[in-house]
Amino acid sequence: MNDPTGQEVARLHQEYVLQPWAKQGGPVIAVKRAEGIYFWDYDGKRYADMSSQMVCSNLGHQNQVVVEAIRKQAEELCYIAPSFAVKPRGELARLLVRIAGEDHFQRVFFTLGGSDSNENAIEIARFYTGRPKILSCYRSYHGSTLGSAFASGDWRRFAYEVGGAAPSFVHFLNPSVYEDGFDRTPEDEARCTRQYLHQLEEQIAYEGPETIAAILMESIVGANGVLVPPKGYMEGVAELCHRNGILLICDEVMAGFARSGKMFTWQNFDLVPDLVTFAKGVTGATVPLGGVIASKAISEFFVTHPLPCGLTYSGHPLACAAGLAATQYYLDHDVCAHVRQLESVLKPTLEGFARRHACVGEARCIGLFAALTLVVNKETRELMAPYHTSNGRMPAIFAKLRERGFYTFGRESNLNVCPPLIITEEELREQLDILDEVLTWADEEFCK
Amino acid sequence: MNDPTGQEVARLHQEYVLQPWAKQGGPVIAVKRAEGIYFWDYDGKRYADMSSQMVCSNLGHQNQVVVEAIRKQAEELCYIAPSFAVKPRGELARLLVRIAGEDHFQRVFFTLGGSDSNENAIEIARFYTGRPKILSCYRSYHGSTLGSAFASGDWRRFAYEVGGAAPSFVHFLNPSVYEDGFDRTPEDEARCTRQYLHQLEEQIAYEGPETIAAILMESIVGANGVLVPPKGYMEGVAELCHRNGILLICDEVMAGFARSGKMFTWQNFDLVPDLVTFAKGVTGATVPLGGVIASKAISEFFVTHPLPCGLTYSGHPLACAAGLAATQYYLDHDVCAHVRQLESVLKPTLEGFARRHACVGEARCIGLFAALTLVVNKETRELMAPYHTSNGRMPAIFAKLRERGFYTFGRESNLNVCPPLIITEEELREQLDILDEVLTWADEEFCK
Ligand SMILES: Cc1ncc(COP(=O)(O)O)c(C=O)c1O
Ligand SMILES: Cc1ncc(COP(=O)(O)O)c(C=O)c1O
Repeated sequence: MNDPTGQEVARLHQEYVLQPWAKQGGPVIAVKRAEGIYFWDYDGKRYADMSSQMVCSNLGHQNQVVVEAIRKQAEELCYIAPSFAVKPRGELARLLVRIAGEDHFQRVFFTLGGSDSNENAIEIARFYTGRPKILSCYRSYHGSTLGSAFASGDWRRFAYEVGGAAPSFVHFLNPSVYEDGFDRTPEDEARCTRQYLHQLEEQIAYEGPETIAAILMESIVGANGVLVPPKGYMEGVAELCHRNGILLICDEVMAGFARSGKMFTWQNFDLVPDLVTFAKGVTGATVPLGGVIASKAISEFFVTHPLPCGLTYSGHPLACAAGLAATQYYLDHDVCAHVRQLESVLKPTLEGFARRHACVGEARCIGLFAALTLVVNKETRELMAPYHTSNGRMPAIFAKLRERGFYTFGRESNLNVCPPLIITEEELREQLDILDEVLTWADEEFCK
Repeated sequence: MNDPTGQEVARLHQEYVLQPWAKQGGPVIAVKRAEGIYFWDYDGKRYADMSSQMVCSNLGHQNQVVVEAIRKQAEELCYIAPSFAVKPRGELARLLVRIAGEDHFQRVFFTLGGSDSNENAIEIARFYTGRPKILSCYRSYHGSTLGSAFASGDWRRFAYEVGGAAPSFVHFLNPSVYEDGFDRTPEDEARCTRQYLHQLEEQIAYEGPETIAAILMESIVGANGVLVPPKGYMEGVAELCHRNGILLICDEVMAGFARSGKMFTWQNFDLVPDLVTFAKGVTGATVPLGGVIASKAISEFFVTHPLPCGLTYSGHPLACAAGLAATQYYLDHDVCAHVRQLESVLKPTLEGFARRHACVGEARCIGLFAALTLVVNKETRELMAPYHTSNGRMPAIFAKLRERGFYTFGRESNLNVCPPLIITEEELREQLDILDEVLTWADEEFCK
């Protein structure tokens, strides 16, 4: 069989594939190969993957250690049911527990992606506590199965409410420092934290603490703009949980696996969650895998109570082998240290953009987890695009970047800068220069 | 690093893994390797995989064509986001549409497993019709995320109702010929079909047809006992759907991919569904993959309306490459013909068991999709275990089989016989002899 051309690959996609969150049949880039931080289309055009795809290719493309582990496991044993013990599954579970902290954590339930990791965490929290309600943030995304979609805050949830919203999913507003009109001064952050914690405390009291199974939160909100929380906020939420017998579920699907310079992003805060959900970075997207890490207390409970969850591919051996290789890679190569070092390049550069560019309202960066909030007016903080509308401005900016070989995405008025964590300083600086130029264009094009 | 022993592998599992639908920490078989229809533990004990694991390893273990495709894709390109076109994704989508029928089908949305395939089919059906309700069967299983769990009928659903059942999920009773007291005579089947269709028609009228988005059904109920429907029933349901503008979603997660002697089990009936969900057999479980095949009309709708679904790993290239190789393998080797031929061994043998064994109430078999209903009394049809209880009898029978190297599972009083579809006649006969002997033991042990 002849290898198809790029046009043929694109045509098959346009004709036969249902593509997420889009109208079908539109223009599409056919990708031929990828390596490190780059991927190439069939015309040989190179793109720097400045969002690690969906913030998941944390180790870049075609990491040879992970590829080799996949090849080896594929040749040995692709699949065996979750009721059997198999080497990579147990070993990965142990490694993840150790990374989360053996003092507090004990067992792992494996899933396939982010959505079902949150589904199962919700289910485990409800079953363990016997309480129905799940509190989650408006500024959040947790997935696209019914439970994870109901828990999500952004408008992607609406479509799931055609059948009626499920009971017992309650949303609260989490801080977005810049959009809420605060500055990143110690005084303003303290004020913002105090205000949001007070409101959450009130909401918990009015909902009835004894009806709340868990608060589900992204450790740092990712898809909705890398919303680095104001100092003390996350610790305050954890304290409210603790005081009310409410479980804290940290969604590390996007934030986890060295993205923020720690293996888990909650490890930047002074708190310990009860359940940790993960996906993406655990295999660097090479094979679908997700899961839930459970505290000792919860793990212990399921020694005497049957776990009311299951899926055919829980702990899929091929996925676990990829997960084991990738997770070990982060540790062996101290990817966290590399990320923290590059933060010292990325963060000041983006903050410089916020000072210099009319269109950059705020820059947020922790590790290689960063986003810019784009505005048309810095004085009024008027956003590049009002919430849940498109005026074509953000797509135009992304298209301009793409033209220049800088590939990323962003929701609403946010522009993500989340490159693979193995990016070099030189590669990063090269791409930031491109971003700088496109922002200059946007200043002139859109700012009042 | 030394290879761990079987004991070490088992201990890691017991200590660190949350195993589906079970109390944690119990005894577990550590699996060392697998090939064809067999797998082996670390003591060298061989098991014949008479349930294809969870009825998913349809091509047996370590099919070299599929393994080679995984290796090749892993070395080429493990992952790229769903918004890009990539060779195996488009090619697999086209192949699946062709197998389902190009006259009627057009596009495929890829997921990771069975649960999220049903989730997305539900979401697509609701969004396309603008109607909220999903009707599904009590005797059914559709998955363990909130939407697929609510649609499921068996008691695994209960745990998901801790947070309150979601609105718009409605269940109806589907036939179980034997348990309902009918015989497999033409007259009785006709009576059974008539009765159930009448009741469903009434239920649709009382629910309000214009509020019902879809009827979701396993083409043949699998996990709950391979409930081969009475003649005419499935066509009658399809006709009711058609008459009321209700979509028909056929869940082919377990039944699909040559299991019943056709690529899709609905192809045994005189009907065409609007949406087909699949998983398991598409890759023979080698890499997690599932999806939804959509009719032309539905596919066309999403050219002008954004698809309100998405997941990071939709159309994962590695999974699609495995799916393409496995799906092509079924066709190239005419696995369906082989299955139909072995049906002529399996079906009469199991029906013989039903005549000869006191403990076998009914045998159902289509292709290599088979189950026995076990009873303590054939006259009264008293089941080996009442619904949703365990008196230890079924586990004892499964343990006896396992001892003899015959591995399978079954829910309630059903014992599944669903071997890999590449089993030879000789292998099949050898295993059926073991089953025969264990049933003789069960006759004496349990039957009144
Ligand atoms: C924080 C978070 N949780 C969950 C998900 C859902 O993951 P998936 O798309 O793998 O289902 C995402 C996806 O972007 C995410 O960012
Ligand atoms: C008919 C059917 N649908 C859906 C599922 C759920 O599939 P998964 O376990 O891959 O989520 C199963 C699992 O056994 C099934 O048999």
